[in-house]
Amino acid sequence: MQKSEVETRVRESFDRQALMNTLGAKLDIVKDGEVHIRLPASEHITQQHGFAHAGAIASIADSACGYACYSKMEKDDAILSVEFKINLLAPAAGESFLAIGKVIRSGRTISVASAEIFALVGNDEPKCIAVMQATMMRIESKQGLNG
Amino acid sequence: MQKSEVETRVRESFDRQALMNTLGAKLDIVKDGEVHIRLPASEHITQQHGFAHAGAIASIADSACGYACYSKMEKDDAILSVEFKINLLAPAAGESFLAIGKVIRSGRTISVASAEIFALVGNDEPKCIAVMQATMMRIESKQGLNG
Amino acid sequence: MQKSEVETRVRESFDRQALMNTLGAKLDIVKDGEVHIRLPASEHITQQHGFAHAGAIASIADSACGYACYSKMEKDDAILSVEFKINLLAPAAGESFLAIGKVIRSGRTISVASAEIFALVGNDEPKCIAVMQATMMRIESKQGLNG
Amino acid sequence: MQKSEVETRVRESFDRQALMNTLGAKLDIVKDGEVHIRLPASEHITQQHGFAHAGAIASIADSACGYACYSKMEKDDAILSVEFKINLLAPAAGESFLAIGKVIRSGRTISVASAEIFALVGNDEPKCIAVMQATMMRIESKQGLNG
Repeated sequence: MQKSEVETRVRESFDRQALMNTLGAKLDIVKDGEVHIRLPASEHITQQHGFAHAGAIASIADSACGYACYSKMEKDDAILSVEFKINLLAPAAGESFLAIGKVIRSGRTISVASAEIFALVGNDEPKCIAVMQATMMRIESKQGLNG
Repeated sequence: MQKSEVETRVRESFDRQALMNTLGAKLDIVKDGEVHIRLPASEHITQQHGFAHAGAIASIADSACGYACYSKMEKDDAILSVEFKINLLAPAAGESFLAIGKVIRSGRTISVASAEIFALVGNDEPKCIAVMQATMMRIESKQGLNG
Repeated sequence: MQKSEVETRVRESFDRQALMNTLGAKLDIVKDGEVHIRLPASEHITQQHGFAHAGAIASIADSACGYACYSKMEKDDAILSVEFKINLLAPAAGESFLAIGKVIRSGRTISVASAEIFALVGNDEPKCIAVMQATMMRIESKQGLNG
Repeated sequence: MQKSEVETRVRESFDRQALMNTLGAKLDIVKDGEVHIRLPASEHITQQHGFAHAGAIASIADSACGYACYSKMEKDDAILSVEFKINLLAPAAGESFLAIGKVIRSGRTISVASAEIFALVGNDEPKCIAVMQATMMRIESKQGLNG
C-alpha cells in the first residue's frame, strides 16, 4: 500500500532524529493521530540497575507524542515539545519497549498527547511500564524550521 | 582532596548508567543534595531540526535529580524515578548542556528534586533552556537493588 | 442495592473533604478503581473570564484520582496526593463538569491514576476539557490518619 | 505609593476570580514577574484529614503563576493556563498558606512560571509544603477575553 503524505512526512522527520538511531529506536506504525515507536532493550541504554533508563523511555514517548500531534498538522508546519510529564510504573525490564502516542487535542497552536509505554517479553501480554502526558507547539512554516 | 563516601557512591552508580555514556554525558560536581551533569552537543543526540532532543536533555536532568536525592540517602539504599516533568524553554542549541539537580525535599520514602538545564556557548552567560520537577523513591537495601 | 464496603468507605471520606462541599462537588459513581465527581458550574468557582477556575477543575480531578486509588486499598489505609499534573484543553465552560478518575497502577506504596474532565451542556456530547495524571501514596493505618 | 499599571491590572483581574474569594485567598504582593497569594487555613477548604486540600493549594499556586506571567504581558492581553504540575511535599497544615509565583520564561505565546507554597505558623520559619511548575498561554486582545 502506498504511504500517505502524512506517513511519509513523519517518517522523514523521524529519520532526522539522530537520537532515535543512537538509542536503537524504530518508527513502527504511523496513523492519523497515533504513532508507535519501538526500542529494543540493550546494554547501552541502561541505568545503574540494568533496566532501561527512564530517559530512554521518555525519549521514545516524547517522540511518539510529538509525531502523533505532527500527523495532524499541515505539510509545512514544524513541531516543538513544550513540556512533558512521565510516570514510571515499573522498572523498564523486557526484550523491547513500545511507546504508543495518541493525540488528545489538536489545536491551532497547542496540541496535547498522551503515551503509554509497554515492555514486551516473548508472547507475554504487553506490560504498561510508563505513561506520559505531553504538550506540543505548532511552529508555522515561516519560522524556518522543517518537520 | 579525598572524595567523600557519598561522592564515591554517586560516581560509581553514575558509571553504571550506560545511557549516560551512550549520550556522552559526564558527571561533573557532586555535592550534598546537588549534582551537575554535562552533555556536549553532538550530532548523535539531535532531533529533526539539529537541536539536542528533549529526551537527551530529560535524561541528564532525570539523572541529576536522582543523584541529588541519592546523595542524601544511606549507603545501602537504591533509588528509582517515580515521575518527572520537564518544560523546554528554548531550543537546545549550544556547545554543551549542564543539568543542575537539587533536592527540594528528602523523605524517608519519597524525595523531590528540581533541575535547571543550561546551554553553554563559549564564555556567554549560561542560558536556561529547561526546568524539571521530579519525584524519586528510596528502595531499601533489602530489595536487592544497589545504587 | 447495598453499597460495598469500598463504596461506603470512599463516600465517608469524600464527605469529610469540606472543599468538595465548598465548591459544590458531588460524589457520583464509585466503582472498583474508578470514581466520578460532578461539579455544577456556578459563579463562585470562576476565574477572571467567567469560566470555571483551573484550580476548581484540578480539585475534583485530584479527588477523583485519589479515591480511584483509595478504592483499591485496605480498610485502614489512608491516602495522600504526592503530585499531579493537569492539562487544560479548553476553557471550562458548561452547565457542569464531570471528573472521571481511573487507577492506572495500584502499588503497595505508590499508586498512579489518570482523570478525564468533561464539560456537560444539556444533551450534547460531553466535551473533554482537561486531563490529569496523578501519583498517590498509601499511608498505612498505623500512621494515625484515616481515609 | 501609586500602584503601577501592571499591579492595577493584576489586582482587577484577581478580583474577578470568584474562586479566590470562595477559598478566602487574598492577593498580597504584586511585582514585575512575581506574585504572592495568601490563603488562611479554614475548615471549608479541608480534605478528609483536616489539612488544606491539595486542590486549594493548587488553586492559589496556579493563580500566582498565572499572574506572575500576566505581569509581563501587555495591557490588552489575556492569559490562560495550559497546564500545571504540583508536588505536595508535606501535609498542608498551618495557620495560613503563601503561594509565591515567579516567571521563569516570558514568551510571545508561551510563558513558564514556578511557585513555592509555604505553610505559615506564628513566627516560625515558613515551611515549603508544595512546588509547582506551570505553562501559561498569552491570548491576544483580539480574542475577546480580558485579563
